[in-house]
Amino acid sequence: MESGVLLFIGNEESSMNFKDNWYPFRQDSTFLYFFGLDMPGLTAVIDVDQDVEVIFGDNLTTIETIWQGSHPPLSDLAAAVGIEKTKSKSEISTFLDSVDGQRIHFLPPYRPENSRKLESWLTKTQLEIQSSISEKFIKAVVSLRSIKSEEEILEITNAVNMSVKMHKRLMREAKPGMKEYELLGLVNYEAISSGGSVSFPPIITIDGQILHNHNYSNTLVEGKMLLGDFGAESAMNYAGDITRTIPVGSRFSDSQREIYQIVLNAYQSAVTLCKPGIPFKDVHLSASKKLAEGLKDLGIMKGDLDDAVHHGAHALFFQCGLGHMMGLDVHDMEDLGEQYVGYNEELLKCTQFGLKSLRLGKELEKGFVITIEPGIYFIPKLIEQWAGEKLHSDYIDYNELAHFQNFGGIRVEDGFEITENGSKLLGEPLEIEIREVEGLREGVIGCRP
Amino acid sequence: MESGVLLFIGNEESSMNFKDNWYPFRQDSTFLYFFGLDMPGLTAVIDVDQDVEVIFGDNLTTIETIWQGSHPPLSDLAAAVGIEKTKSKSEISTFLDSVDGQRIHFLPPYRPENSRKLESWLTKTQLEIQSSISEKFIKAVVSLRSIKSEEEILEITNAVNMSVKMHKRLMREAKPGMKEYELLGLVNYEAISSGGSVSFPPIITIDGQILHNHNYSNTLVEGKMLLGDFGAESAMNYAGDITRTIPVGSRFSDSQREIYQIVLNAYQSAVTLCKPGIPFKDVHLSASKKLAEGLKDLGIMKGDLDDAVHHGAHALFFQCGLGHMMGLDVHDMEDLGEQYVGYNEELLKCTQFGLKSLRLGKELEKGFVITIEPGIYFIPKLIEQWAGEKLHSDYIDYNELAHFQNFGGIRVEDGFEITENGSKLLGEPLEIEIREVEGLREGVIGCRP
Repeated sequence: MESGVLLFIGNEESSMNFKDNWYPFRQDSTFLYFFGLDMPGLTAVIDVDQDVEVIFGDNLTTIETIWQGSHPPLSDLAAAVGIEKTKSKSEISTFLDSVDGQRIHFLPPYRPENSRKLESWLTKTQLEIQSSISEKFIKAVVSLRSIKSEEEILEITNAVNMSVKMHKRLMREAKPGMKEYELLGLVNYEAISSGGSVSFPPIITIDGQILHNHNYSNTLVEGKMLLGDFGAESAMNYAGDITRTIPVGSRFSDSQREIYQIVLNAYQSAVTLCKPGIPFKDVHLSASKKLAEGLKDLGIMKGDLDDAVHHGAHALFFQCGLGHMMGLDVHDMEDLGEQYVGYNEELLKCTQFGLKSLRLGKELEKGFVITIEPGIYFIPKLIEQWAGEKLHSDYIDYNELAHFQNFGGIRVEDGFEITENGSKLLGEPLEIEIREVEGLREGVIGCRP
Repeated sequence: MESGVLLFIGNEESSMNFKDNWYPFRQDSTFLYFFGLDMPGLTAVIDVDQDVEVIFGDNLTTIETIWQGSHPPLSDLAAAVGIEKTKSKSEISTFLDSVDGQRIHFLPPYRPENSRKLESWLTKTQLEIQSSISEKFIKAVVSLRSIKSEEEILEITNAVNMSVKMHKRLMREAKPGMKEYELLGLVNYEAISSGGSVSFPPIITIDGQILHNHNYSNTLVEGKMLLGDFGAESAMNYAGDITRTIPVGSRFSDSQREIYQIVLNAYQSAVTLCKPGIPFKDVHLSASKKLAEGLKDLGIMKGDLDDAVHHGAHALFFQCGLGHMMGLDVHDMEDLGEQYVGYNEELLKCTQFGLKSLRLGKELEKGFVITIEPGIYFIPKLIEQWAGEKLHSDYIDYNELAHFQNFGGIRVEDGFEITENGSKLLGEPLEIEIREVEGLREGVIGCRP
């Protein structure tokens, strides 16, 4: 940013069922990245031309300290993160009013109260605020936050290791007859008792074909698989995100084993491809082809697979993207807009079903942290719809597919750092091969014939 | 309500760090009370004059069902709760525009997005919305929700029993050397794995004098006490709320035992007083006097205690209220305004320090559910301030008090139903007497000399 006033709006407490009954506080990630102060009610400004930084916020009143305990004064907190100037909240309007001739840059607000603040400070309507978001500021923030520093890699690794601990607990405790919400309780326990929390609402389901399932009321039944997609947020607010699919009993059925191995092959080939310079869209398409190859071996897909993937026929089974950036957000910087984070002027997001859900398409760079998460999902409603329309019937054998209608879904996912020459798994390896997963589960459930 | 259109605004998903990363969904309690549908994006209307009820909301699109799974159509969901008419979201504006000559009644919005909806539907400014909130509607809702039905008592009892389970777990697991957040993880586990969640952010602290402490970073040390104030929210969104204060080791110290017994005496005398017809303010003042009597025995307070309590001298140690209503919200209906829920035309809230934090002052009625939660808190900053001003020095011996400066705080709390002739403890009794608490802790920590 060569000039202008950069406005960073911190988050407020969020109300659940009445004003003062709050969800756990979550600071804005860009605010954390630049200013590191993890408390509500703060706004920061960088005046690029004057080379001045100010944090606006209020100290607790005596009455507030009775209820909430004492904190150091804001000036001390700011000084500790290298900011010399602080002002009270009520001075923001005047400060912004006095900006003369410089552009005030701000990022897209994703919480209604922050949108309100902008409207009030800048005397603009909601629509005017939407149309005055600074693309230049977004791009500058994305360029910094995309490349993770050594300290950040360490902290993400910490979050990933907490996530591994959560998964190991689930893999060791899941038993037929349990409710999904019992496991939700356990993974929350592991995250919170390590000093963190969850980085997004956990997916813990025997209906793995529902991609973002936040229902936890099913009972685990032998013969089904359990898909767990969740991760920790570390105390410093970095995210982990891992998925495993395990048998509810000790062993996969034959068809589960076959589909699992296809997904795992796609995962492994994608990991091998990742390195600086390759567009992640190509990795996604290559993994899609691997999935299609496996499905062809099973007779579910057919024909020329390059053509099939080109036309998006595989997306009947793999409706989403292969992965996303990860950092202070589990989908890193998603609030800033996927077109800036995962794409660029040369590569726009594709509108084809499947590809349009790929959050990251552009060339990988050293220092990116990404997830790789291929899956195969048999979604009855979608299959019905495609079959009804005979969609891509050159590539899909709907008769064979009928056997898999109620199969469910399988996904595996890990986090990787893009290194000089390739990629590196973040954190402790977690069981992922069929024999590893079954070995662990046999220890829990006992070996059955 | 003799006439008018009653507007019930359901809640939306709440964003954490980007739009689609959500906190666990919490429906508005009044919406739940009248319409029972626990999902985002709904608005309901009762046209009193026409005797018509409508729920506005949208069915999931096919694409949404791929990500979120299928739900029954809104018309089925509405029918199941006795509402025959449904319309799409986009029809609300037109519906409200077409209201002719009737008043549109709405309740105070406590989430910014719901305030926005009102502004847009009714083409009013934020200030105009604030000044058009319907007092009549608030009073009608309060009069219904204040008296709990048998079914509600059962469900609150269920939430209380889940809360008891959470407390028993903490009392059995707390050990010197642990971090407070490890126990936070455990109580979350107990709530979630029972199919519910927490009814408010748990307080789990060795700094019990901080009334609403949401910091969990301290290490438990022998000699200190641990204050746990938390409860479950049942799957049907009813709240439990219990407080216990236990020794971090197996036994209280002599002075801890003395202060604990004073608090417990106040609790027991308050329980005995509660019955239909008595103003809860009187129960609060009577409990305050009990606390003052105990503190006088210790030499911390002095003089005429009726005068002391009348002048609010005891509030140096008991800064908050004796209790609150409990139901679908832990502070039931707090969003509707304390002046309507806890007070009435004959009894306005007092502005005296201490009493101004009493949420419930008015006469108890059969069917109320309330908490009773006396405490004694030694808040160094507040003591310093009062001592500096020699405030109430006729009633407080600041020299004796100096010995207790760093004592901490003690609170005990349970939930009660107001019955025909008195009050009834809700749920399973949880250890509260000194010998009960120490007995349980000795089983955990072992008996020490």
